[in-house]
Amino acid sequence: MPFEDKGFAKVDLHRALRKGFPEVVLGEGKSPEQTVVIAEEIYKQGGTLLITRVGQEVFDIVHQRIPEATYHPLARAITANKNRDVTLRPGISVVTAGTADLPVAEEAAVTAELMGNKVERIYDVGVAGIHRLLEYLPALQKAKVVIAVAGMEGALPSVIGGLISAPVIGVPTSTGYGASLQGITALLAMLNSCAPGVSVVNIDNGFGAGYLASLINQASSETPNI
Amino acid sequence: MPFEDKGFAKVDLHRALRKGFPEVVLGEGKSPEQTVVIAEEIYKQGGTLLITRVGQEVFDIVHQRIPEATYHPLARAITANKNRDVTLRPGISVVTAGTADLPVAEEAAVTAELMGNKVERIYDVGVAGIHRLLEYLPALQKAKVVIAVAGMEGALPSVIGGLISAPVIGVPTSTGYGASLQGITALLAMLNSCAPGVSVVNIDNGFGAGYLASLINQASSETPNI
Amino acid sequence: MPFEDKGFAKVDLHRALRKGFPEVVLGEGKSPEQTVVIAEEIYKQGGTLLITRVGQEVFDIVHQRIPEATYHPLARAITANKNRDVTLRPGISVVTAGTADLPVAEEAAVTAELMGNKVERIYDVGVAGIHRLLEYLPALQKAKVVIAVAGMEGALPSVIGGLISAPVIGVPTSTGYGASLQGITALLAMLNSCAPGVSVVNIDNGFGAGYLASLINQASSETPNI
Amino acid sequence: MPFEDKGFAKVDLHRALRKGFPEVVLGEGKSPEQTVVIAEEIYKQGGTLLITRVGQEVFDIVHQRIPEATYHPLARAITANKNRDVTLRPGISVVTAGTADLPVAEEAAVTAELMGNKVERIYDVGVAGIHRLLEYLPALQKAKVVIAVAGMEGALPSVIGGLISAPVIGVPTSTGYGASLQGITALLAMLNSCAPGVSVVNIDNGFGAGYLASLINQASSETPNI
Amino acid sequence: MPFEDKGFAKVDLHRALRKGFPEVVLGEGKSPEQTVVIAEEIYKQGGTLLITRVGQEVFDIVHQRIPEATYHPLARAITANKNRDVTLRPGISVVTAGTADLPVAEEAAVTAELMGNKVERIYDVGVAGIHRLLEYLPALQKAKVVIAVAGMEGALPSVIGGLISAPVIGVPTSTGYGASLQGITALLAMLNSCAPGVSVVNIDNGFGAGYLASLINQASSETPNI
Amino acid sequence: MPFEDKGFAKVDLHRALRKGFPEVVLGEGKSPEQTVVIAEEIYKQGGTLLITRVGQEVFDIVHQRIPEATYHPLARAITANKNRDVTLRPGISVVTAGTADLPVAEEAAVTAELMGNKVERIYDVGVAGIHRLLEYLPALQKAKVVIAVAGMEGALPSVIGGLISAPVIGVPTSTGYGASLQGITALLAMLNSCAPGVSVVNIDNGFGAGYLASLINQASSETPNI
Amino acid sequence: MPFEDKGFAKVDLHRALRKGFPEVVLGEGKSPEQTVVIAEEIYKQGGTLLITRVGQEVFDIVHQRIPEATYHPLARAITANKNRDVTLRPGISVVTAGTADLPVAEEAAVTAELMGNKVERIYDVGVAGIHRLLEYLPALQKAKVVIAVAGMEGALPSVIGGLISAPVIGVPTSTGYGASLQGITALLAMLNSCAPGVSVVNIDNGFGAGYLASLINQASSETPNI
Amino acid sequence: MPFEDKGFAKVDLHRALRKGFPEVVLGEGKSPEQTVVIAEEIYKQGGTLLITRVGQEVFDIVHQRIPEATYHPLARAITANKNRDVTLRPGISVVTAGTADLPVAEEAAVTAELMGNKVERIYDVGVAGIHRLLEYLPALQKAKVVIAVAGMEGALPSVIGGLISAPVIGVPTSTGYGASLQGITALLAMLNSCAPGVSVVNIDNGFGAGYLASLINQASSETPNI
Repeated sequence: MPFEDKGFAKVDLHRALRKGFPEVVLGEGKSPEQTVVIAEEIYKQGGTLLITRVGQEVFDIVHQRIPEATYHPLARAITANKNRDVTLRPGISVVTAGTADLPVAEEAAVTAELMGNKVERIYDVGVAGIHRLLEYLPALQKAKVVIAVAGMEGALPSVIGGLISAPVIGVPTSTGYGASLQGITALLAMLNSCAPGVSVVNIDNGFGAGYLASLINQASSETPNI
Repeated sequence: MPFEDKGFAKVDLHRALRKGFPEVVLGEGKSPEQTVVIAEEIYKQGGTLLITRVGQEVFDIVHQRIPEATYHPLARAITANKNRDVTLRPGISVVTAGTADLPVAEEAAVTAELMGNKVERIYDVGVAGIHRLLEYLPALQKAKVVIAVAGMEGALPSVIGGLISAPVIGVPTSTGYGASLQGITALLAMLNSCAPGVSVVNIDNGFGAGYLASLINQASSETPNI
Repeated sequence: MPFEDKGFAKVDLHRALRKGFPEVVLGEGKSPEQTVVIAEEIYKQGGTLLITRVGQEVFDIVHQRIPEATYHPLARAITANKNRDVTLRPGISVVTAGTADLPVAEEAAVTAELMGNKVERIYDVGVAGIHRLLEYLPALQKAKVVIAVAGMEGALPSVIGGLISAPVIGVPTSTGYGASLQGITALLAMLNSCAPGVSVVNIDNGFGAGYLASLINQASSETPNI
Repeated sequence: MPFEDKGFAKVDLHRALRKGFPEVVLGEGKSPEQTVVIAEEIYKQGGTLLITRVGQEVFDIVHQRIPEATYHPLARAITANKNRDVTLRPGISVVTAGTADLPVAEEAAVTAELMGNKVERIYDVGVAGIHRLLEYLPALQKAKVVIAVAGMEGALPSVIGGLISAPVIGVPTSTGYGASLQGITALLAMLNSCAPGVSVVNIDNGFGAGYLASLINQASSETPNI
Repeated sequence: MPFEDKGFAKVDLHRALRKGFPEVVLGEGKSPEQTVVIAEEIYKQGGTLLITRVGQEVFDIVHQRIPEATYHPLARAITANKNRDVTLRPGISVVTAGTADLPVAEEAAVTAELMGNKVERIYDVGVAGIHRLLEYLPALQKAKVVIAVAGMEGALPSVIGGLISAPVIGVPTSTGYGASLQGITALLAMLNSCAPGVSVVNIDNGFGAGYLASLINQASSETPNI
Repeated sequence: MPFEDKGFAKVDLHRALRKGFPEVVLGEGKSPEQTVVIAEEIYKQGGTLLITRVGQEVFDIVHQRIPEATYHPLARAITANKNRDVTLRPGISVVTAGTADLPVAEEAAVTAELMGNKVERIYDVGVAGIHRLLEYLPALQKAKVVIAVAGMEGALPSVIGGLISAPVIGVPTSTGYGASLQGITALLAMLNSCAPGVSVVNIDNGFGAGYLASLINQASSETPNI
Repeated sequence: MPFEDKGFAKVDLHRALRKGFPEVVLGEGKSPEQTVVIAEEIYKQGGTLLITRVGQEVFDIVHQRIPEATYHPLARAITANKNRDVTLRPGISVVTAGTADLPVAEEAAVTAELMGNKVERIYDVGVAGIHRLLEYLPALQKAKVVIAVAGMEGALPSVIGGLISAPVIGVPTSTGYGASLQGITALLAMLNSCAPGVSVVNIDNGFGAGYLASLINQASSETPNI
Repeated sequence: MPFEDKGFAKVDLHRALRKGFPEVVLGEGKSPEQTVVIAEEIYKQGGTLLITRVGQEVFDIVHQRIPEATYHPLARAITANKNRDVTLRPGISVVTAGTADLPVAEEAAVTAELMGNKVERIYDVGVAGIHRLLEYLPALQKAKVVIAVAGMEGALPSVIGGLISAPVIGVPTSTGYGASLQGITALLAMLNSCAPGVSVVNIDNGFGAGYLASLINQASSETPNI
């Protein structure tokens, strides 16, 4: 199984075969130069690129080397894709409790879209005004998988999980203050969901949720979209 | 301001004047003998007695000394009241997410009833089947104060707080397992409620919730019920 | 039940009917532009506006669109109210342990005032010099509800709760250092209050305390002040 | 949406329609009597019954009322199913790091089997002897979803997640001692998986993992198995 | 510097010279046999013996070997002293917030008495009824050092520390439940005391408080009492 | 008991009588203007001033109003004292484990000196080179009270506590990284000291340690030095 | 690489080749029957057996099947070894702070002895009486590796690490109470050791320390002792 | 045993004799001036210098005084060595899970190199693509000791520990986000390694790992390399 040794990184060229999608670059903790070197290698081999948790200044460097790359400022993600004319598969809904959860939700949505899925965004329907959520119940009941993004008390995945039969992926966010403990409270709450069918990813891990949602959504098809 | 010195305890005889209700005995951490001595002194002076967190074996001893005392096995509380013919004031609803929350809910209900309130019990209406809660919405909207008892993800106070205008007292319970952390998760979730009008008491503190609910419910009347 | 969909936010236009007060905007975690759009919608519909946790720079933008808005720098809050000639209802006291607790106390006071209450401020009466608190005991005993704001060991709600019969809302603050754990210590201490009648809101959540105090204070009246 | 009010419980008779599977009874925290009453009602309505976290003594009571019920001692679960001749759908593998993880793994397997899935069990293949896991790689690569059960450092989901393209559900267990913190360490580790496609449920929550795995596995079929 | 090697223990025979008091035996974690062997060696050499955290069954064994030993059941401590006719030095007050704090307070008192101090006990004067504490203010103001024992919110040392000029030793206790976190809350609160002159020992460490109080009380004298 | 009400602060003019030393100003969390107003009032009344946790910029403002004030940059403290010709009482040693602990140690030393004590500084004698500490053993054995300041594993108070008979005040510092948890580790370690005679103050609380050490040191004298 | 599949366990028959020592059985969390089946397989293949964390009742079953097995009650371990006439290699010292640390120390010692090392035991030399430790300094300085076992403040590895040049393996124990947090405090303290050359294993993990010490001790020899 | 007293520091001149290597300067928490004074003293005496956790600006000052000093920007360390012509001893491998772990790995490598070891660097071979690690298995099996550096779920030491017989030193890093808790998760995971032969140092403590690895690697030689 091949990989490309760059010294500071061993780019996993076999990832797309093994996992169905090339290696994704977590920008945080890497220098812009390291990020670019890894990104170029992945894109050259696989034709699909996702870099998460980077600012505009990293994009400016990446863009010089990969002109077709796009920056998603709210999601803080860079994408590039040589296979542009794929038909997107519907089935994923991304839901947030509040407006402050949008950056994480967008990271999830951008990831799922790059992986060939059509994403329905339902934002700011938290439990303080539950009629807003109930208004979207028909849409949610049609989803094959729902990503529920929430900070503070993190109740959204439980409430959605009680209403629909599809899997719900809870994404706790670090919004809130004080006893929200930078998202630990929402994380713990989601792990204790009284509604079955709910699982959880790391705090602010929109990427992980979008990736997993794509795996679940693509499972119902003969040939995956990537 | 007088108190009675029993050596191991200084019974606060002035409590009823200052607080509107006599001293309450927390049975946990006291020997049965200590509990009885304190209870007798309070009952003699004030004519109203509440002992919390005690088993049947403590009641058997108390009962010998205070024959009109009653044991509430689910709430694990002892009450006695010389002023039996008071008309109970409606306005307090006690709601639980699940069946395992009943002991805490009953401690709250017994406390509020002893303090002169009529309590409506709405049990097992957690968010995994939210239609059960919505069924009771008309009843909840009439309440002057709602006690919402929940373990696990502790979402109930937030959801109720989003639906009604009365104050909601959240009581986290130590039910659940693993990441419920013996009620810490529910406690943190309730403190981060996105719905305003919610405050929180200690884990499993049904007594504290019932007491506070009575204060709020009695506030709307000229003369308190005790 | 109506709401206004702004994409990044679904403004809850039904909140005032359901809860007796319009939706409140938590400025933290929102961009200034998002904040303004939401604020305008709420103010247009309900005539009462509260934005919390914002700086002067957000106010400058809001002010251009809502000229009658006022900025409260200590509380870091923006208010606007079309119904200016309401008579304020007395009954709420806001008490702090120290001077560093003032921003949180002011957020509580500004909230309660906007909701139609007259607020008595009693600042810097912590337990290190308890005679300062006892001096204000007559005033506290007249209150219908007391908001007790404290960091460090958070003992103030317990001490007040032992002295008066009205409900006490404890607000832990993130003042202090080291083992204060950014307010966790005060939060835990207040949750363990040995005095009944005390409940707690999130760390630094002056808004939540002010809102709840208003609910309790208005309960004793036929028609709420808003 | 109907439910049956038993006082201490409101049995959710609409669950099977909404969620595709009837309400499941968490035995822990309920008295045997409460458990039986709820179980009978569910079984009468839906013909499928799952009770988790109960001992032999509860089964003895349930068995008197539901003679076709079966007890799974390792999983500590009771099942009953009127629709016995369903063909089980393959696609779920349950993997454990060690022998001590078997009770949680069996709870997952029993749940998935009751929901109409064929389960492949691969037990005791933790990373201390990774050749054991690699031996089963062909089998794992054929799975539609993998449940990875591990305590201690909880590395198994990450390693499996790096090797296959199907979703991996991590189940941390409370095995281990000292700094395993009753499963918190495994939980945290799984949430930080460097391999994408991994999500996590509560500590020891075999039921939740089995339920979710069934949802994912059934998604690829026209008509669900239950 | 000599010590006696017993294999499982090296009894520190030099402790009395270095520290002014012989080695004290922490019974917890030792077998009764180990405890007795160590105790005999210490008592033989120094004539003063203190064993903490032991039950009646250990005392029965010790008593056979050291007939003049005394068991203090509330404190769960064994003492023996060959120098019985020492005049006790006044100056130490042991104060508790509640009745459940007595075992820890008694461990402190027994320790201080064995070290030659006269101890004034003021029990059950917690802040829920602060007039009880104020009643004893003249006594407290005469103390050279005060041991303040409290669980739950642990406010007692702060309040006493604000009222007197002598050092206050806070002893958090593991009484309480839920968010008391087995005494962690009281410990944290005491460490954040807003009143100067307060220091803290481990949860339930009555012995440590009594020992330290003796050091401080004896400091004002030419010759220590032991 | 008088105090001066400044609105944002109630200056405790009675503190010196009650506690033997005037109110001390914690600069952190107060605006420079608030700090100056409080400081002036205290200094006018008592002639002794201590402000802790302030930078040079606050001193510049204070200095304009109180020309005899001195800034201690390492301790980040301001002092002023009208009673300059007091003879300092020897007896306090301040010891640090490392160089990074000096700011906290100096806060302790400056406090104790202002309160009339002569302080011996023994810096950088941590347990990694225990011969450095043993070199100073004769000096330590002469002390009436020792302040032991340490971060990281916080072993210094235990080691000193095993060597001398005077009280040891442990001050954990927030130096270190990773699992030092900003001083929590050192705090916990000191609370578990196996050597008796040790008590602990808050992380980085040099002031509290210096204040308490002065109380203990002055106890051995007829008339306190202030 | 072969293993033996027992269903509930896959016995790693290749472990001795890969790691130089056969698989070790952690008895905790396994039924006695499971333990025996695994143990027999390992012993049959490798001739060396170590089972940790088991009581006498497990030994009684093991002994029937492996008559040459020995039970070490203090260590709660079972050993068996067909290669009895190996010369033990000196170089490992096991040191404890107190008597309560002996069970963990013995688990370490038994492990190291089984692996072919001669172990010197130096028990009860904690820092409260540091002269006891210094007495053994010449012995410690001759060791190739030292295992330092301590609970409470866990200072022992730091102090030893400052005195010798060999590696020190810290083993925190769960002895102590209150803020010892079942060994977390000692663990954190050891991780923050100011003396280089110290590393740490899990709380109470005597086996891990003994195993690692053997690896280090054997490294200095041409041919390992097993 | 001599040391040099600089007031703010007591430079341990005896360290090299006692420990085999001179005192190392932890730059963090010291002023540049303090760092330089200590460094010069150590270098003058021992001819070998290591300063950790310093930026370029500290190096600029050190360089003026010690011209032969070298700055390692990735490791943030300064080294100087008068004994340049030592033959480096092979045997240490430093392995990282990801690219973001390089700074910590380099601190370990620089330390081990300065102590006379040849270091093999194997970077970015985390478990998400385990074939990369297996590719280096022959190299790892030749190592005398392996330093495994990883953040997030920290699984690397366990996996390596299961594959080789040499000791593995786990170094958790603070890379990652959310539930990585600044390295606490990786730390806990490594402490719970199911593979024997693994021990752990503090989060980000590359120095400690490099130092310990050198001790172990040098143990197999007659004369240490320094």
